[in-house]
Amino acid sequence: MAVTKRVILGRALRSDALRETLLRKRIALPVFASDPLSSVAYAPGEVLLILSIAGLSWYHSSIWITIGIIVLMVTVVASYRQTVHAYPNGGGAYSVVSRNFGRRAGLTVGSALLVDYVLTVAVSVAAGIDNLGSAVDFVKQHDVSCALIVIALLMVMNLRGVWESGTIFAIPTYAFVAGVLGTVAWGAFRGLALQDDMRAPTADFDIVPEQTNLSALAMLFLLLRAFSSGCAALTGVEAISNGVPAFREPKERNAATTLTVMGVLACTMFLGVMTLALTTDVRLAEDPAHDLLIDGRPAGSGYHQEPVIAQVGAAVFGGHSVFFYFLAGATALVLFLAANTAYNGFPVLGSLLAQDRFLPRQLHTRGDRLAFSNGIVFLTILAGGLVAAFDANVNQLIQLYIVGVFVSFTFSQSGMVKHYNRLLGEEQDAAARRRIYRSRALSGFGAGLCALVLFIVLITKFTQGAWVSLVGMALFYGLMTVIRRHYDAVAEELAVNEPPEHLGMRPSQVHAVVLVSKIHKPTLRALSYARLLRADSLVAVTIAVDPDEARELKAEWRRRHLDVPLKVIDAPYREISHPFVKYVKELRHTHPNDVVSVIIPEYVVGHWWEAVLHNQSALRLKGRLLLTPGVTVTSVPWQLHSAEAARERAKRGSRRQAPGAIRRGSGGHRVRP
Amino acid sequence: MAVTKRVILGRALRSDALRETLLRKRIALPVFASDPLSSVAYAPGEVLLILSIAGLSWYHSSIWITIGIIVLMVTVVASYRQTVHAYPNGGGAYSVVSRNFGRRAGLTVGSALLVDYVLTVAVSVAAGIDNLGSAVDFVKQHDVSCALIVIALLMVMNLRGVWESGTIFAIPTYAFVAGVLGTVAWGAFRGLALQDDMRAPTADFDIVPEQTNLSALAMLFLLLRAFSSGCAALTGVEAISNGVPAFREPKERNAATTLTVMGVLACTMFLGVMTLALTTDVRLAEDPAHDLLIDGRPAGSGYHQEPVIAQVGAAVFGGHSVFFYFLAGATALVLFLAANTAYNGFPVLGSLLAQDRFLPRQLHTRGDRLAFSNGIVFLTILAGGLVAAFDANVNQLIQLYIVGVFVSFTFSQSGMVKHYNRLLGEEQDAAARRRIYRSRALSGFGAGLCALVLFIVLITKFTQGAWVSLVGMALFYGLMTVIRRHYDAVAEELAVNEPPEHLGMRPSQVHAVVLVSKIHKPTLRALSYARLLRADSLVAVTIAVDPDEARELKAEWRRRHLDVPLKVIDAPYREISHPFVKYVKELRHTHPNDVVSVIIPEYVVGHWWEAVLHNQSALRLKGRLLLTPGVTVTSVPWQLHSAEAARERAKRGSRRQAPGAIRRGSGGHRVRP
Repeated sequence: MAVTKRVILGRALRSDALRETLLRKRIALPVFASDPLSSVAYAPGEVLLILSIAGLSWYHSSIWITIGIIVLMVTVVASYRQTVHAYPNGGGAYSVVSRNFGRRAGLTVGSALLVDYVLTVAVSVAAGIDNLGSAVDFVKQHDVSCALIVIALLMVMNLRGVWESGTIFAIPTYAFVAGVLGTVAWGAFRGLALQDDMRAPTADFDIVPEQTNLSALAMLFLLLRAFSSGCAALTGVEAISNGVPAFREPKERNAATTLTVMGVLACTMFLGVMTLALTTDVRLAEDPAHDLLIDGRPAGSGYHQEPVIAQVGAAVFGGHSVFFYFLAGATALVLFLAANTAYNGFPVLGSLLAQDRFLPRQLHTRGDRLAFSNGIVFLTILAGGLVAAFDANVNQLIQLYIVGVFVSFTFSQSGMVKHYNRLLGEEQDAAARRRIYRSRALSGFGAGLCALVLFIVLITKFTQGAWVSLVGMALFYGLMTVIRRHYDAVAEELAVNEPPEHLGMRPSQVHAVVLVSKIHKPTLRALSYARLLRADSLVAVTIAVDPDEARELKAEWRRRHLDVPLKVIDAPYREISHPFVKYVKELRHTHPNDVVSVIIPEYVVGHWWEAVLHNQSALRLKGRLLLTPGVTVTSVPWQLHSAEAARERAKRGSRRQAPGAIRRGSGGHRVRP
Repeated sequence: MAVTKRVILGRALRSDALRETLLRKRIALPVFASDPLSSVAYAPGEVLLILSIAGLSWYHSSIWITIGIIVLMVTVVASYRQTVHAYPNGGGAYSVVSRNFGRRAGLTVGSALLVDYVLTVAVSVAAGIDNLGSAVDFVKQHDVSCALIVIALLMVMNLRGVWESGTIFAIPTYAFVAGVLGTVAWGAFRGLALQDDMRAPTADFDIVPEQTNLSALAMLFLLLRAFSSGCAALTGVEAISNGVPAFREPKERNAATTLTVMGVLACTMFLGVMTLALTTDVRLAEDPAHDLLIDGRPAGSGYHQEPVIAQVGAAVFGGHSVFFYFLAGATALVLFLAANTAYNGFPVLGSLLAQDRFLPRQLHTRGDRLAFSNGIVFLTILAGGLVAAFDANVNQLIQLYIVGVFVSFTFSQSGMVKHYNRLLGEEQDAAARRRIYRSRALSGFGAGLCALVLFIVLITKFTQGAWVSLVGMALFYGLMTVIRRHYDAVAEELAVNEPPEHLGMRPSQVHAVVLVSKIHKPTLRALSYARLLRADSLVAVTIAVDPDEARELKAEWRRRHLDVPLKVIDAPYREISHPFVKYVKELRHTHPNDVVSVIIPEYVVGHWWEAVLHNQSALRLKGRLLLTPGVTVTSVPWQLHSAEAARERAKRGSRRQAPGAIRRGSGGHRVRP
């Protein structure tokens, strides 16, 4: 089996043999861009949804909002291209901000990113289910359950460690891009060349404005809300800047080019979908049950609003054509893939945060699957909770999403401004300085724009759910501060300030105590090890849980002429740890300057259920002994035949890798070109 | 807090100071008899239910069935009185059968008892909810949920370790006995002295016989079914014979007397309730929705059949009187208490089974709360599952219950016959032999009667659910056989057959390796301990996860003039266990006759969440090292300030006791007389 696995997965690679695992651009694009590109599936709808509040007549202004979003997108992409060049080792927002603004700002961004990961999962899965539901009725009717099942599947896949490879990302992402661009192209052809009148399924519906006679200020506010909702299109743009090390040489150039391609694709698709939505008269309402009129009557609570992509697809291809199903399927798939990127991104961020001791240390070192497993389960529970709490409603979840995204954008761009300021302080060459000035201007413009969007998001969406994100960020911030403080306190406590003589660390003698329950091979091995120690005193101790057994043990001890004295201690409560710890403490008490070395024979088994049957008392006892000052605990293992199984497992385990490895460009299975 | 606790709970007592914790008869009765006495709450109804199949005209035969059950009860009680005298150290069915018929029979009874514990919980809680529902409408409407909540509460109470005391048992049990006897007495007074015509709420209903024109054989079969259902009254009778050690001296006499009192009470209550049910014309049908006619029409699926006790109470006192509510409340409470006895009985049986290595060893030694916790959760899941699967339907659950009960009765009585046979072989005195003959006759009669009932139960109830119990028993039997086989195999593997020289257990040298991550107090302590060992070689090893850190460590090592050589090992995968284990293996390889002693500095923390933040890699590494032959692992602990908390907890923990202690008469909190 191990051989089959190696054939399929490829051998785990050493750091210096990693070149082959690095990503070509055409694979890197889908690996990193499934998240930002998939935003096209929900962002256009969000704009129309908000505009519907003022009524159909305001739909036309969506084109201006689209232009605004595209300007923002171009700025952000251009700015992140600079980040790629400035921080080729992975210029994630957390690193950039920590380096330029210090720990607190970094931690703020870290918290925002953690919230983002949770919401990437929640929003993407909910949107994916929405799109799948447009093709499959069953999914539509059980959307919350289906979304929870998808999240659970993602968890299981990531816990098991799926066959992580660029190709898996490539197929759905390219299918989605092809589907959307194909729809736009065919739609343009039909509309312009054939002069067909394409009508969305909702084209004949009417919308009751929720608010009429809006003041100019209120209307501006509404337009800003629509704009900020549309900014959901930008989510995930920063991914490439985190993943520069995963690109092939020349890394920076390749990453920057990929970023540009991604930006161009995202803008084209967004613009295309938006234009088609307007020409095919897609009708979306924020509260379709009341505000959407079908033949003059409210749609009612049974009405299920189809996502924009599905409506556009139905208008261009017809609602039962193969192309429609292809588009719906590809959209759903790329959205689930986008959700998966959160599971891949978390270990990367977790590792950085752990390096700075904001998260448990074991998240830092690679390959500790157990640690990441906890993170994966944690992410799943939070995302699943949000999906359940918000009934898998994309519109509501998006309100939470954008906050975190723009917090990190703003901080990250500002960090770049500071970065260029520092460079200016060092650079003398006039031409170079001019380039830096230009770059700084771009980052500054990006930072300002993002800050403006963040401000708009906060004021327009605070009551709609943005506060939930802020609370979440505050909780993460608090948790990480507490963890850091704990590590600092421990480091302080353990630091060596005095010379070792003053630490009472020069014990003069060792008293060895071998714990014996019966005479078998592990006991004999422990005894011979103990003799070898040449301790200053050596005694075997047994706890008499059952007086008869103890008597028998004593007799056998004599019969076998074992040359270590055996001491029998009564266990009035039929429990071994208490009397044994008491004995050890008394021994320490009579020799306060010495060390008591407790030697425990243990047998090692191969399966967890065997572990349940053995060593439990020894484990408890070890825990108690480690709490006792001046005591060391030595396990002398005896491997049972079945331990072979565990050894095999350990070997296999060391060959597996942690999730997210492919995005870190460091390890992982070969990606065949 | 610890002081308050000690004041409330009393100090944990040593074995030799346990006299005070032993039970007086008047406390022992409720402790052991809540289960058998509470059967009166459901057994009479079961008889009527089955008879209803043949129609109302057959209700009168219930009085003969009652007499049959009372004869059986008297026999079983008398026989168990003998068991008490014969096995004063606790003559549970498992011990008696194991000693007299060997391992397989004992295991069969053990499996039956385990099934019994599950069903005691399920049946008692379902019946309790039924009775509570007769007084509280909400409970009636949500019976399954309420039953599951009660089971969950029982679990939590037993996991936390409630204030286990005789008094808690005493109040509801005596209230129930008083309530039932009071009802019977008042009913008799009203009926006989006042000539009142008491009518049950269902007295005017009619019953459609499910089967008419039954053949004599079929009718006999039905009567036998009714009889075997009524035998549910006997469940729990054996409890006192398990608990003799918990009684005060003279233990046997006191236990036997308590058993007699319990038997008399149970018979009186059963007879009284049955008589009242017949005189007040209680109507119960097996399928009330179809077979119970209200004003000539079927009751329909919305109809909820009230238990007999509630109907009798309503007839005697009126359905809205205080007495009625008191009776319903006391009945529900004593039934929940009966369910709790399963949680208390399980550890006792588990301990015996573990002693014979049929269950994990740690269940044997007292005070290991963790082990018992698993048992408690296990019991809860199974009982909850049954309640959910059978919709908390007492009638259906009872079919499963009686099998296990009578398997253990039959085996246990037969075991007593064998016991007396052995005594006869040893005894010469004629008078004593006569007494033994008499005892043997009684046990033999009991065994025969119980076997007959078991046979009846199996043929009449097999398809009604008895098969579920048999499958359950088979599963437990299989599981325990596997566990025993595993322990035997391990014992075989570990047994010392060769002289130790031939075991390769005489290593000639020790090579000590200290694992170092950075230089702090725990490391220095581990180093000074390692020096003290006077091993044949000593080296400190660090795994270079981060090259910079490793370089720094080396420099500090030199600066501090540490006299142990430091070896730096590269970690290409940023993971420590793999390269370290490889190093240790190579060391072993070059010295195949020696032991490698790995010394790991550890810091000990006080809270679980701190443990999450520390030592995780060390823990993983230890697991891997224990799998490597010829290696011993020594933990050199450094107690952080916070470890004080864990020390306190461990002290408190050793003072707490495992559930069921009060029934074992060994330990536990003082029961004030």
